[in-house]
Amino acid sequence: MGRDGRPTPQTGPTAVVAALVASVRAALDAAGLATADIAAAGLSAPGPLDHRTGIILTTQNIAGFVDANFPIAARLAADLGGPQVFVDRDTAMAAIGEGTIGAAKGARDFVYLTVSTGVGGAIVSGGRMIRGVTNTAGELGHFPVGMDRDVRCRCGSFGCVEAYAAGRNLAEAYGAAEASIVYAKAATGDARAVALIARAEAALANLAVGIVNALNPERIVVGGSVAEHEPAHVLEPMRRAIAERAFKVPAAAAKVVPSALGADVSIIGAALAARDRASGGGDWFL
Amino acid sequence: MGRDGRPTPQTGPTAVVAALVASVRAALDAAGLATADIAAAGLSAPGPLDHRTGIILTTQNIAGFVDANFPIAARLAADLGGPQVFVDRDTAMAAIGEGTIGAAKGARDFVYLTVSTGVGGAIVSGGRMIRGVTNTAGELGHFPVGMDRDVRCRCGSFGCVEAYAAGRNLAEAYGAAEASIVYAKAATGDARAVALIARAEAALANLAVGIVNALNPERIVVGGSVAEHEPAHVLEPMRRAIAERAFKVPAAAAKVVPSALGADVSIIGAALAARDRASGGGDWFL
Repeated sequence: MGRDGRPTPQTGPTAVVAALVASVRAALDAAGLATADIAAAGLSAPGPLDHRTGIILTTQNIAGFVDANFPIAARLAADLGGPQVFVDRDTAMAAIGEGTIGAAKGARDFVYLTVSTGVGGAIVSGGRMIRGVTNTAGELGHFPVGMDRDVRCRCGSFGCVEAYAAGRNLAEAYGAAEASIVYAKAATGDARAVALIARAEAALANLAVGIVNALNPERIVVGGSVAEHEPAHVLEPMRRAIAERAFKVPAAAAKVVPSALGADVSIIGAALAARDRASGGGDWFL
Repeated sequence: MGRDGRPTPQTGPTAVVAALVASVRAALDAAGLATADIAAAGLSAPGPLDHRTGIILTTQNIAGFVDANFPIAARLAADLGGPQVFVDRDTAMAAIGEGTIGAAKGARDFVYLTVSTGVGGAIVSGGRMIRGVTNTAGELGHFPVGMDRDVRCRCGSFGCVEAYAAGRNLAEAYGAAEASIVYAKAATGDARAVALIARAEAALANLAVGIVNALNPERIVVGGSVAEHEPAHVLEPMRRAIAERAFKVPAAAAKVVPSALGADVSIIGAALAARDRASGGGDWFL
């Protein structure tokens, strides 16, 4: 298997497509393959996007993609000159990965949650990905779970799970370079760090209880770097809150489990999605 | 059409079934019909219940139904001696009513919300009712949207939308006999009433933003007595919050609309559900 990683250009869509094509070529070279050898490619991207048409509607964090309506699947396919390209949101790709070969395998009702730089999600119910009327459903990180208007979120709202519990937000609120420093400070008893982490845990607890009561999933798969490094502050408070506060019947049915596919979950999901969609399958996640 | 209403007995399941049978007979008499004239009956009940088997798992507010696992559909069908009986949760029946002939007709992605004595809901996504792994999904009134542990909910949790915004909770928090008094007091400038209603609006606002971001519905249909009498304090704050705080794409797609079927929404939904299920249809809501 070939692997190639590189930073995302911040000079617009054309540069991003060029970098992606170069990356694909490098990965193929490393694997001793040519473009003609692959039938399909999967692209995991931040949303909102249209996974059916392969158009990125808008993306805050990549220059040139704000309100761009950029047909990235078609452009990539043309420039690669061969494979079909299938696009989906990073969290949807992660859910596809976990649902197909990971921690949600066999479950028809599950939620994928990532607690990382930001907080995102994807919802599968009754064996189908919940998409919504304009294909933007699943943004569980932007469910407001607190009423403090001072807890501002990058999305423009306040009180979002992300505003309390995302790594970037924790670091900014403390004034540290990254969230790991806040967790380390809290471990030494630093009162401000302890309070921020307690608040993050309370937000994740509210989200977990809400997910169980509203969606009644069999599993909540939690990935992302913060969840991976701090399970006692992410998965554990979610489990405790479900046991103590959610309705009994759905609480007994819901398991909070770590991602089985780790940091590569969206890449693996993208490959599985491309394979399934190219072969005419994968209906459950469309 | 025959109509009969009577209070729910609080002396156990047998008495409830007897009252239901008497009520059906009275309604049939009034319409000049016999049991043999009806093919199916629909029963709208509080959850959690199993709508496929017609078993009420547990119900807090009716004596004898706590952890009862009571097969009410089979018992009713036997005692009526004729029609098939189909059971579903009151909010699911309401969603069936609104989705079939009401304010959500034609929408494949919608949420039904009732703001009344309590707060409840039902979710339809991609043309299917979201049920969850044990058929208890949809309890949007028990999504925690605040972190104040003193805002206790009857469900045993805290911070639920219901704890802030339900009529019963508003009345209890103020110390009034019913919520309408609190709204009337607020209209005269009573500071405590104003604060309680502001908090209820903030909870509904958080729920609305969360629903839009997480589920991306085309419509949010809001019923229930509080919504009906106080739309400026229920639907309006939801609309404002969606416009100001939700992600742009799903916010533009989401309309908050009042129930088209009013106080009878669950009864009408139950009749439609019975008709459709008896004829082998209604797959979308199973």
